[in-house]
Amino acid sequence: MNSSNQASNLPLPKLLVIDDETEFRVSVCDYLQNNDYRVVQANNGEEAIELFKKEKPNLVLCDLRMPSIDGLNVIEKLSLFSDMTPIIALSGENDMDDVMKALLLGAADYFIKPIKDFELLEYSIKRGLREAKLQEENQRKSMQLELGNAKLRQSLDLLRVDQQAGRVVQTSLLPQSPFSSINYNCQHKIIPSLYLSGDFTDYWQTDDNELVFYIADVSGHGASSAFVTVLLKYLARQLSLKKEGDSESSPAVLLSQLNNELVKSDLPKHVTLFLGVLSADRQQLTYSVAGHYPMPVLRLKGKYQYLTGRDFPLGIRTGTEFSDIKIALDQDFSLNLFSDGVLDLLPKGNMTAKETFLLALVERCEGDFNAIANVLCLDSVKDAPDDIALLTINSRKTN
Amino acid sequence: MNSSNQASNLPLPKLLVIDDETEFRVSVCDYLQNNDYRVVQANNGEEAIELFKKEKPNLVLCDLRMPSIDGLNVIEKLSLFSDMTPIIALSGENDMDDVMKALLLGAADYFIKPIKDFELLEYSIKRGLREAKLQEENQRKSMQLELGNAKLRQSLDLLRVDQQAGRVVQTSLLPQSPFSSINYNCQHKIIPSLYLSGDFTDYWQTDDNELVFYIADVSGHGASSAFVTVLLKYLARQLSLKKEGDSESSPAVLLSQLNNELVKSDLPKHVTLFLGVLSADRQQLTYSVAGHYPMPVLRLKGKYQYLTGRDFPLGIRTGTEFSDIKIALDQDFSLNLFSDGVLDLLPKGNMTAKETFLLALVERCEGDFNAIANVLCLDSVKDAPDDIALLTINSRKTN
Repeated sequence: MNSSNQASNLPLPKLLVIDDETEFRVSVCDYLQNNDYRVVQANNGEEAIELFKKEKPNLVLCDLRMPSIDGLNVIEKLSLFSDMTPIIALSGENDMDDVMKALLLGAADYFIKPIKDFELLEYSIKRGLREAKLQEENQRKSMQLELGNAKLRQSLDLLRVDQQAGRVVQTSLLPQSPFSSINYNCQHKIIPSLYLSGDFTDYWQTDDNELVFYIADVSGHGASSAFVTVLLKYLARQLSLKKEGDSESSPAVLLSQLNNELVKSDLPKHVTLFLGVLSADRQQLTYSVAGHYPMPVLRLKGKYQYLTGRDFPLGIRTGTEFSDIKIALDQDFSLNLFSDGVLDLLPKGNMTAKETFLLALVERCEGDFNAIANVLCLDSVKDAPDDIALLTINSRKTN
Repeated sequence: MNSSNQASNLPLPKLLVIDDETEFRVSVCDYLQNNDYRVVQANNGEEAIELFKKEKPNLVLCDLRMPSIDGLNVIEKLSLFSDMTPIIALSGENDMDDVMKALLLGAADYFIKPIKDFELLEYSIKRGLREAKLQEENQRKSMQLELGNAKLRQSLDLLRVDQQAGRVVQTSLLPQSPFSSINYNCQHKIIPSLYLSGDFTDYWQTDDNELVFYIADVSGHGASSAFVTVLLKYLARQLSLKKEGDSESSPAVLLSQLNNELVKSDLPKHVTLFLGVLSADRQQLTYSVAGHYPMPVLRLKGKYQYLTGRDFPLGIRTGTEFSDIKIALDQDFSLNLFSDGVLDLLPKGNMTAKETFLLALVERCEGDFNAIANVLCLDSVKDAPDDIALLTINSRKTN
């Protein structure tokens, strides 16, 4: 067996040979030095411990029977300094009890003196060195991984905290839910795909006791889309629903202005939106649609159906025209609005199948917000591919 | 040495003993079974390989001299199936060459037959099992860490991509830089602490050839603050600088409206802002300050000094009053605006010391944007605790 210690550019392994029998010790050291090991030697336990601390050998050969501090004692002490340095016990034929004790103390291997086969000794040394190196590498690798892990977790926490703070701000922009105006009940839920949502909803009662409401979906999701919802919320509440001289509120008038303002804002996003105005005085819903999908489901006279109509999304080009659609209501109705993220929660199928399913679902739940949320398992939605928004509005029962 | 295999609730270790000498094999198996090992035995190589595959033992004892397939061959084959299962070679006294070969093939240890000390054999078995378990645990731990790492990296990437997309949107809201109006040059730089910035700046030329500009710092930083900058940008560009009948632009008029709109928006943030209007016709700077700090540095007639004045931040309460301050300019001036994040880049000291340092820095750089950016090492800023914003405006030299 040829030693390959010199083949690499690494420093030669350093061995500490401990034995009080000079002749034996020197013969072992000579053999090892001739096979490209650096060797330091000690002829008693005290010297061995000093040398171990000073020289930091890669492996130790230690005779068990020595005067003063015996080998077992030395092994025990050396193990305290470094449990990574392999120790090979050297023992007389009749000291197998000591060998056993040495092994229990952590010795990696043992040899009976006189050593009959130096190649076997060298093999044991190589194996000890290899295992120590492996153990060290394992530890280093684990440490690196753990360090990398900690760093990643730190970066992640930083971003999460940031996004969470953004979410708090965004949530503060959402209307109270549930909310009751004089004539209507509103309830909504927004589930962001990540932390920040491109879906948004708002509703408020006007001075004329009308209820204005919308559900919107900014293209994309996350922070970039959430940005636009801030502006949307502000604009929708500021812009007028009426042209000068108009008596009735017109969602189309607001959408048209909203569109122009969003285009002016130069934000690289477009918005689909359904905007409605409910007037109890007129018993009427007036709405206008900026490309929103799916359309809301209206329950009227016990019948559930999708509203119709669909103009162009907002924020793409100025001058887009929107139209108002009017629906006469009676005193008992409900209206369920969704963003398209809801469709991802439905059984696989094409869009027509999903629309049919959603309509049936609303009907089965009798348009009830909580029942629908329950069937869709909204509380356990995680890692949704898109933001999810639900808004339900119904007439207050005047019992 | 008492076996402790039965102490735990784990299944007993399973050993495969391979030897063609029945008497020896049975004696070894008996000893091991009596010491709480499960034992399967094979009396030849073929059977051994089949049993190994079928029984998946935790450790193998393998005689080296067997008819048909010899032990070395068996060890080689078993190592191919699983290099994690320790193998102890059993050999006659005169077969040390084979022992050496077995060790080189990966055997964990060897024993010379007849076995004189079964306790030593059992010790070797225990050590082999322990090391295999350790190796397995190391591998599992590494794998778990790597898996955890990959998951963390994935989550991090998701958030980074999201924030990056937000940053693109936010950057799209910033004005062109450098930018030259008829009379002035503008240049700015925003360095977010994370991805999204609560610092913001904007400037534009009005129809009256005035230059309106501001630098703003939304409280906090990151996504939540960046939200507000979207609204800020929109509002500042929409709101009027003049009351009805006014002839001169009034930053205070705009700040007052901006403040009311921000308060109305219910965003849980306040904003410090410096707003100025430069009129070449009047050779005049008019500005109003909403709590912004540090104040801009003005170079006029070769002298550098901080502007003065400081009203209340925006977005805290409606009705805050702001005042206009007018400065007569000559044809050659420069104006350097900063957000307070810049102060973190200066040598440690109290605020007065930092202000003095910043003023001297601007003077040394002669108000030049790139020179200042250079001295502040803006290109190498990383992980700044706060967002950093710089805006420089100077008169165009009419050579």
